[in-house]
Amino acid sequence: MAKKGICSRKDDYSQWYNDIVIKAGLADHSKVRGCMIIKPYGFAIWELMKSYLDNKFKETGHQNAAFPLLIPKSFLSKEAAHVDGFAKECAVVTHYRLKTSDNGKEIIVDPEAKLEEELIIRPTSETIIWDSFKDWIQSYRDLPIKINQWANVVRWEMRTRLFLRTSEFFWQEGHTAHATKDEAIEETKKMINVYNEFIENQMAVKVLQGVKSESEKFAGAVDTYTVEGLMQDGKALQMGTSHFLGQNFAKAFDVQFQNKEKQREYVWATSWGVSTRLMGALIMSHSDDQGLVLPPNLAPIQVVMVPIYFNEEDKSSVLEKLELIKNELSTKNIRVKIDDDDQKRPGFKFAEYELKGVPIRIALGPKDLLKNQIELSRRDTSTKTQIPIDSTVETIISELSNIQNNLLEQSKLRLKENIFSVDNFEDFKTQIKKGGFIKAFWDGTTNTEEEIKKATKATIRCIPNGQPSKRGNCVYSQNPAKFEVIFAKAY
Amino acid sequence: MAKKGICSRKDDYSQWYNDIVIKAGLADHSKVRGCMIIKPYGFAIWELMKSYLDNKFKETGHQNAAFPLLIPKSFLSKEAAHVDGFAKECAVVTHYRLKTSDNGKEIIVDPEAKLEEELIIRPTSETIIWDSFKDWIQSYRDLPIKINQWANVVRWEMRTRLFLRTSEFFWQEGHTAHATKDEAIEETKKMINVYNEFIENQMAVKVLQGVKSESEKFAGAVDTYTVEGLMQDGKALQMGTSHFLGQNFAKAFDVQFQNKEKQREYVWATSWGVSTRLMGALIMSHSDDQGLVLPPNLAPIQVVMVPIYFNEEDKSSVLEKLELIKNELSTKNIRVKIDDDDQKRPGFKFAEYELKGVPIRIALGPKDLLKNQIELSRRDTSTKTQIPIDSTVETIISELSNIQNNLLEQSKLRLKENIFSVDNFEDFKTQIKKGGFIKAFWDGTTNTEEEIKKATKATIRCIPNGQPSKRGNCVYSQNPAKFEVIFAKAY
Repeated sequence: MAKKGICSRKDDYSQWYNDIVIKAGLADHSKVRGCMIIKPYGFAIWELMKSYLDNKFKETGHQNAAFPLLIPKSFLSKEAAHVDGFAKECAVVTHYRLKTSDNGKEIIVDPEAKLEEELIIRPTSETIIWDSFKDWIQSYRDLPIKINQWANVVRWEMRTRLFLRTSEFFWQEGHTAHATKDEAIEETKKMINVYNEFIENQMAVKVLQGVKSESEKFAGAVDTYTVEGLMQDGKALQMGTSHFLGQNFAKAFDVQFQNKEKQREYVWATSWGVSTRLMGALIMSHSDDQGLVLPPNLAPIQVVMVPIYFNEEDKSSVLEKLELIKNELSTKNIRVKIDDDDQKRPGFKFAEYELKGVPIRIALGPKDLLKNQIELSRRDTSTKTQIPIDSTVETIISELSNIQNNLLEQSKLRLKENIFSVDNFEDFKTQIKKGGFIKAFWDGTTNTEEEIKKATKATIRCIPNGQPSKRGNCVYSQNPAKFEVIFAKAY
Repeated sequence: MAKKGICSRKDDYSQWYNDIVIKAGLADHSKVRGCMIIKPYGFAIWELMKSYLDNKFKETGHQNAAFPLLIPKSFLSKEAAHVDGFAKECAVVTHYRLKTSDNGKEIIVDPEAKLEEELIIRPTSETIIWDSFKDWIQSYRDLPIKINQWANVVRWEMRTRLFLRTSEFFWQEGHTAHATKDEAIEETKKMINVYNEFIENQMAVKVLQGVKSESEKFAGAVDTYTVEGLMQDGKALQMGTSHFLGQNFAKAFDVQFQNKEKQREYVWATSWGVSTRLMGALIMSHSDDQGLVLPPNLAPIQVVMVPIYFNEEDKSSVLEKLELIKNELSTKNIRVKIDDDDQKRPGFKFAEYELKGVPIRIALGPKDLLKNQIELSRRDTSTKTQIPIDSTVETIISELSNIQNNLLEQSKLRLKENIFSVDNFEDFKTQIKKGGFIKAFWDGTTNTEEEIKKATKATIRCIPNGQPSKRGNCVYSQNPAKFEVIFAKAY
């Protein structure tokens, strides 16, 4: 157990993760099984993610809307393949009224208030949205429809982990309808690229992009595109998916349009989403045994300033200088906090903001003022430097950019160093125990995929976009391979 | 039935409202009883409301967070008064799994997957939030806590109307905890003023502010502050409430803190909220028989530009000019759309944007270009003017401001003209049939309130802040009055 009550990664990675989430004030368990409370500091990070993505969605021609939380059970039956995929474990509403018990002491469910048809809390909204699209779409003039929804969804999970797997979680789900197959495929690819760009440039995480194998894709999709991150413990985390749905939902909900030639055709569709899982990925990608490490672009507080003083006179001169710097930084849209809480000592504050992953810490005392210098500490490198006080603003601006870049470079390096090519199953089994992405040839059969999973718990994370010109033999069957793919154990 | 299939207000106000919501593309009924679909155009207005309010909440020191959708039934029992108030009609989750029926053809609820304790979809979040506050609050140093949540809530409604009363609706709920009674009361008042300012300056609606009577207040509150708007049909609509909760929830959930004198005290609380009901109020406040009328501050499209052309050459010169104007307006953060859809005639577009309440419409054709003029139409006054093309940007900027002011002035006037002072019950009954706010003295008894409601369906909307120095006699009992209050029939 390191200081601050955070377990070290080496001792117990899973406990380390949980400690950071709780101690940095990001989220908490609620008394409702599997549901989390996202606390203000955690929610502020999620808001920065949402805000960036929401702008990108709008720039790429999407509009937000809201569809009902509750879905009639019969809608799910319409797309049975879809339900088989994942939606069986879900919250079912059967009654619509509470009443006081006969003894007047308790609240009970009124047995008279039973719904004729049960309602399901949405595990995802394809069915209810496609039921609406049927009303919205008559002609090619109504297409494309490009909708996004920021929503809470519920999937009943037996084993939950804060952000990574919770029964209720938050996400956005994009749903689009197109007149042609090509346009829908283009949309699917465009959105996985929006995710890729966001994850790389905002989250400072390097990911692998590709398509899912038949058994790993979304059940309702023709093709699922994915971006896969590698966590510090060598496990993969699926960070976003974009599905080309073909005409599956259009057929299930009978959504046809009249084309320019006045013929009726089924509509082509996509859906795509990222969720609060990204919070888990962000935490696991950069943090260390001292606590959270945040890339500046997603840090609610980018710079914290801690005044050092022993009397009121020093306090006011130090604070006056810090306020000036803060105001200048604020005009440049840098998020700054001055912590002048008298109840806490500077050392306590240093530890607190280290734990919370604030990228830059500034400390200023009366002696510094005399020397015209200020102390700047970087959270990512744990380096501390004295800089001329007049250069504070420009140094902070360049250091924020350096930190963002450094975190991405580290992530790139970690990914590169942890992709292992293997060509036989013995090496595969040895390597998978150590973790990382395994690059290997695969014969393309579901059987091979299943056997590998049974033996090692590894799954195909993706079939990368850039396939080699020459195929080898399958790492498991040694038959001629169909693809070079990435295997890993995954969250 | 007027043009565009909108019923006139005179013929059927309720049908008129519904026609506008549907035909302007704001929202739609879903197949789930009482739940609405907010369509992109309606959601864009809601987003503008959210964005403004969210900034105000943050400026006033609040942070966003997220608490679970589902609440254990036992939490509601803890605050029985609270449940008695309104939470009996709510959606109850009893099971957590679906399965395929024995014949393999249907999806059914798995009877084995019954929850030990039923979960309620939140009708409001006081209980689950106070259960958390118990963990968050130990000392006066932890106070105040000022949280807001943007969320969906469910109250099972038998008779629903789009935006005004739906089973699922969207809202924000602020929840704060304070060390002193005075601080909590100050917070309650501050937030009702935030709502008042928003409604007046953004929604351009003049409201009355005051406190609720004992029987009209939120069951869990000590005092409920309210802002009440008057719709065009003479009915009142409660637009926002802010509750001083005293120590009620602190006692129900045993939330105490140690004060500076090391004594344990119960925490003081507030909660406050506005919902998608505001959308209903906005629509009803300004719109006319031609469709929606929006105040510029909340219009997703503030200016629409319709090019007029008969050949490609004209089209390109007209569009080129409009693009230039649009770019200049965009740099001034004005939301502009150029509708260059060749499939629709200009007249059709004019009608469409009139229906959608776009504040300013610009039309430009080749003849206008020759004359160096442009046509500007105001939605609020239905006036059309030719203006010099070089003054377009400045004219638009000043006209947007004029429209915003004009709508507010109209709302002020309507409110002023529809407050009727009465001093006897015969006049009361005559006036209430015609609608409007009735200002009258009230003896302060619940009995009088009930008798008036029984006879006229009117309720006390609020006890206004500015009470007259001299009291008269109660309009119903003729006993000495305790307050001068506002009565109305309400949505």
